[in-house]
Amino acid sequence: MNCIQARFASLSLLFMAYLMFSGPAAAADALSSWKDGPTRQAIIDFVEKTTNPQSGDFVPVEDRIATFDNDGTLWVEHPMYTQLAFALDRVKKLAPQHPEWKTTQPFKAVLENDMKTVAASGEKGLLELVMASHAGMSTAEFEAIVKDWLATARDPRFNKPYTELTYLPMVELLEYLRAHDFKTYIVSGGGIEFMRPMTQSVYGIPPEQVIGSSIKTQYEIKDGKPELMRLAEINFIDDKTGKPVGINMYIGKRPIVSFGNSDGDRQMLEWTGAGAGARLMGLVYHDDAEREYAYGPAGGLPNSPFGTFSQSTMDEAKKNGWQIVSMKNDWLRIFAFEE
Amino acid sequence: MNCIQARFASLSLLFMAYLMFSGPAAAADALSSWKDGPTRQAIIDFVEKTTNPQSGDFVPVEDRIATFDNDGTLWVEHPMYTQLAFALDRVKKLAPQHPEWKTTQPFKAVLENDMKTVAASGEKGLLELVMASHAGMSTAEFEAIVKDWLATARDPRFNKPYTELTYLPMVELLEYLRAHDFKTYIVSGGGIEFMRPMTQSVYGIPPEQVIGSSIKTQYEIKDGKPELMRLAEINFIDDKTGKPVGINMYIGKRPIVSFGNSDGDRQMLEWTGAGAGARLMGLVYHDDAEREYAYGPAGGLPNSPFGTFSQSTMDEAKKNGWQIVSMKNDWLRIFAFEE
Repeated sequence: MNCIQARFASLSLLFMAYLMFSGPAAAADALSSWKDGPTRQAIIDFVEKTTNPQSGDFVPVEDRIATFDNDGTLWVEHPMYTQLAFALDRVKKLAPQHPEWKTTQPFKAVLENDMKTVAASGEKGLLELVMASHAGMSTAEFEAIVKDWLATARDPRFNKPYTELTYLPMVELLEYLRAHDFKTYIVSGGGIEFMRPMTQSVYGIPPEQVIGSSIKTQYEIKDGKPELMRLAEINFIDDKTGKPVGINMYIGKRPIVSFGNSDGDRQMLEWTGAGAGARLMGLVYHDDAEREYAYGPAGGLPNSPFGTFSQSTMDEAKKNGWQIVSMKNDWLRIFAFEE
Repeated sequence: MNCIQARFASLSLLFMAYLMFSGPAAAADALSSWKDGPTRQAIIDFVEKTTNPQSGDFVPVEDRIATFDNDGTLWVEHPMYTQLAFALDRVKKLAPQHPEWKTTQPFKAVLENDMKTVAASGEKGLLELVMASHAGMSTAEFEAIVKDWLATARDPRFNKPYTELTYLPMVELLEYLRAHDFKTYIVSGGGIEFMRPMTQSVYGIPPEQVIGSSIKTQYEIKDGKPELMRLAEINFIDDKTGKPVGINMYIGKRPIVSFGNSDGDRQMLEWTGAGAGARLMGLVYHDDAEREYAYGPAGGLPNSPFGTFSQSTMDEAKKNGWQIVSMKNDWLRIFAFEE
């Protein structure tokens, strides 16, 4: 190697060093859909102090666990949960094979688009719809059904695939955390097998980092081939007090970052906050009817059966120093498809 | 930078390149406790073809999932499962607070070291012992109890801490796979919270990559602090047909590598083998009474209630091309503490 080659090699080395050490700073710039204000600053301050080895709040890489609710936290949950829209579509598609549904509630109401009667059927009715649409097939078949639906269904207000109704600032936050060696998880009341087909491509979160509600499955040999069949029986409800239970069951570590948006996320944030050392908890607050939706009833916003955010949750958040992420005031852009 | 500095920099670059590209070859040498024979070669061939981008069997990093049973596959399960030894010790320790155990089976038998009567109490009796020793405390308390026991208890034959009774060739295999970007998981019938306190330090496997049996937990606020309390109720049995169910529940992907050692691992290996593309399945065969234990009854070895390996499992293994890992013939060393 002559001296010119050696110089070239040393320049390569400098460039490699640049790539190695410039990551975090570049990632902070990546929160570009967040308004430069106290919420964005609180996030950056937390990440900088927990990832700086010189800081008293430093957290080793293996303990950088961040958990995120999905519906209303990472993507839209109005006018109804995406999974409910899927279940209703699925019931309509299966109706020709179930002539009895024409006269049996809550199926009759679904087929007649009578959403009031569907809602009035309560938890029992919804469970029947979920089981009729989510059970009775193999896990592989269900995955194909969900993928097909996600590829073709459109949200009624924005006329976009549901996978485009993700909040750009939250996707940036996930990427920012991962650029600082956080492991990002979804912890959702939604069905784990409904989310997994899309979380890698949409959020960069692999199936093994998705925690959700589930129905039981059963191992069977069908035509000489092993299958996991989906049974019409609840296995686990990953909501409210179920969220810390699910986190412990799947991860076995306490998160140091948690974001949610509703009463169903309180216990996850409490559990996260109860650990020793620096913590970051946040609640996405839907206060932007113009660009997305506005619902609470916290702060006097209209009530909603999907993603209820009650005043007592707001009070607990303020008492505990949880970040309230105002969609209206903290986010410059909500969706990637916006101008 | 002068020319000498530049040359130094270029040497650093070469060294870095060496570190970057020498990993896999160095890792193959790391299977040094394996005898150079067909089993070791089958492992190396599989890893080389699935990680070589030029190979038709190449598997992308995100799908390199490897699952391992624990008892009898990664560590010793005789004269009884380590967790059972823990449960018996725990019952003895708690006995002063339970005077009624002196006259109630199966506790009486435990306190009298009458293992025949303990065994005769069957599954119901064992469940009572497990619940009495594993439930009724918080997850944090249980973790501390397990850590303390693992630090002090000694195996009766080798007089070593149980965490030293791991199979060196299998630990090398875990490391070899991880050096090739495989994600290694434990999938055990043992209790998930019993294993997690030791898997990182003993196997290099973090808590979130441990799948096991579990009891239910419940979220409670105690003295203003959230706790997960362990209930005397089975949540999930991760054995036999439960293993594919657990793999799907926790990982959501099908493994391409699976190792077990008993009838309880058959369905995990079937499930792994039923996927498309290259697969590696193996069963550790305990045929070395001198250095460890010999039990089957496959191949006419003595029968055992712990880690039963029946002839029909051996027949299925041969039919499906699963590797039979003979402790006697394939392993030069079994334990790290051996000379």
